[in-house]
Amino acid sequence: MDGIRLGLVGLGKIARDQHLPAIAATPGIALAGIASRHAGLPDLPSFATLEELLASGTPIDAVALCTPPQGRHALAAQALAAGKHVLLEKPPGATLAEIGPLQEMARERGLTLFATWHSRFAPAVEPLRERLAGQRIRALLIQWKEDVRVWHPGQEWIWEPGGLGVFDPGINALSILTRILPFPVFLTEAALSFPANRAAPIAAALRFGAGQGGDLRAEFDWRQTGPQSWDIHLETGAERFTLSRGGARLERNGELLLEAPEAEYRGIYRHFVDLIQAGACDVDLSPMIHVADAFMLGRRITVEAFHEA
Amino acid sequence: MDGIRLGLVGLGKIARDQHLPAIAATPGIALAGIASRHAGLPDLPSFATLEELLASGTPIDAVALCTPPQGRHALAAQALAAGKHVLLEKPPGATLAEIGPLQEMARERGLTLFATWHSRFAPAVEPLRERLAGQRIRALLIQWKEDVRVWHPGQEWIWEPGGLGVFDPGINALSILTRILPFPVFLTEAALSFPANRAAPIAAALRFGAGQGGDLRAEFDWRQTGPQSWDIHLETGAERFTLSRGGARLERNGELLLEAPEAEYRGIYRHFVDLIQAGACDVDLSPMIHVADAFMLGRRITVEAFHEA
Repeated sequence: MDGIRLGLVGLGKIARDQHLPAIAATPGIALAGIASRHAGLPDLPSFATLEELLASGTPIDAVALCTPPQGRHALAAQALAAGKHVLLEKPPGATLAEIGPLQEMARERGLTLFATWHSRFAPAVEPLRERLAGQRIRALLIQWKEDVRVWHPGQEWIWEPGGLGVFDPGINALSILTRILPFPVFLTEAALSFPANRAAPIAAALRFGAGQGGDLRAEFDWRQTGPQSWDIHLETGAERFTLSRGGARLERNGELLLEAPEAEYRGIYRHFVDLIQAGACDVDLSPMIHVADAFMLGRRITVEAFHEA
Repeated sequence: MDGIRLGLVGLGKIARDQHLPAIAATPGIALAGIASRHAGLPDLPSFATLEELLASGTPIDAVALCTPPQGRHALAAQALAAGKHVLLEKPPGATLAEIGPLQEMARERGLTLFATWHSRFAPAVEPLRERLAGQRIRALLIQWKEDVRVWHPGQEWIWEPGGLGVFDPGINALSILTRILPFPVFLTEAALSFPANRAAPIAAALRFGAGQGGDLRAEFDWRQTGPQSWDIHLETGAERFTLSRGGARLERNGELLLEAPEAEYRGIYRHFVDLIQAGACDVDLSPMIHVADAFMLGRRITVEAFHEA
């Protein structure tokens, strides 16, 4: 085989903005088919559903699921049952419990299941992780604040149960946090702000505990206009770090250490190719566990109704 | 050593109703001290806090934590750090993520950590599990409906974030479910009813999916007066089972198979003694994962305010 033949399911904003260019740029994998209710791509076999794509006989080895999380389990189970490797956009599903059976199916069939966390592939994440190894963190402040109207236009599913609301971007920060910290943290307090007319939060304030102590907090907000912030501030004993632009830029004590162009989804597809070649899976649920904990432990506050236009 | 010397932390309703008689009836373990803000026991060293109990020099080998879940992580970490085996009342904490570090501490120190699910020790649970092995379930209906005023008088913590509301009893049903079913299930839909003046749900309706299909549902309600129901109805191809009285009674096709007196907490303490003697841990988070999933995926409905009196 020349390379992995990929079926892409869901041709929405994230698929067009990120997946298509990343797949085109990644050696060892090539787009071979599309399943999307509303769209297709010229020169590629395109079908309304994954079921039709699989039934069509279009040769594919793997499937990337870029649909909303609420229906992802059924699609992943369908793809694994058909013997295809599976890449899951984040979050890997609408519940934690639905991932276990998928892992079991992948293992039984010798297939790759990859629960992606794109922010972990930002260029400054691994360098910061290495600098934090073995260190105590005195203070942590995540500020993940963006304009939902800009980043999620018309995405009704994101406001529905299972869509996660502001935790959809927030989980990106948590995926970085759970990668870089040299110790586990757990939520101790949370306040979730729900618009009066929506089923998902528009903002969240989180406080974490850890065996080592420290003042560990996160602020997620979807009402940010003007400059957008995807920043993580950390203080160890002697150093202050700022990871900004979602992980593309790292400062230490106010001095620039690293800044590199965004290429997260290329990292994802490179890793997917490696996993398939190695016959391995990569499913880390820790970012989603923090989100589920926030919904379970969080106090709800009702705020102003949200209207898109 | 004659037996395990136990410190009991939290002398509320569950400790007095269940833990004290069960400890007294269990060979190999004996009560050696109490930590409780508001009460003590005659003839036993009694302290206001676990910290004071540990500092007092009262010889204890293990600690049972019967306090509300919101503060349990800190107490468990304190006990493990002092070299004591730990028994956790259900739920094991206020978050999923806080359990991992406790498991790690227990493993590092060679101590027992036991996350209890008392309903699993009900007499008909294991017999039903054996009958369901390898079977398909066509229909499942959990009906867990009780009067919160009777079972949780004056327990303000249960209405607070992390107190779980109706999932405090509901998690007992989920702990049975995750034990008896021969396959994993996951939540696909949930509606949670929150009283207008409370931070935790008073009722919940859950729907589950599973690889095998089937109509799988649960109803939790705290507004039940009159007869109380702690029932699980199951239909396989040929048989109908009803597990009732919280797991103490089992019917098959309308015929009584088993009915036995409640002795759940004796089962817990017997298992705790066995775990300590074997140098083992028992921490199954699956019931709590379903609860966290319900909070994350559930649609919220605001209902009539709840007043205790």
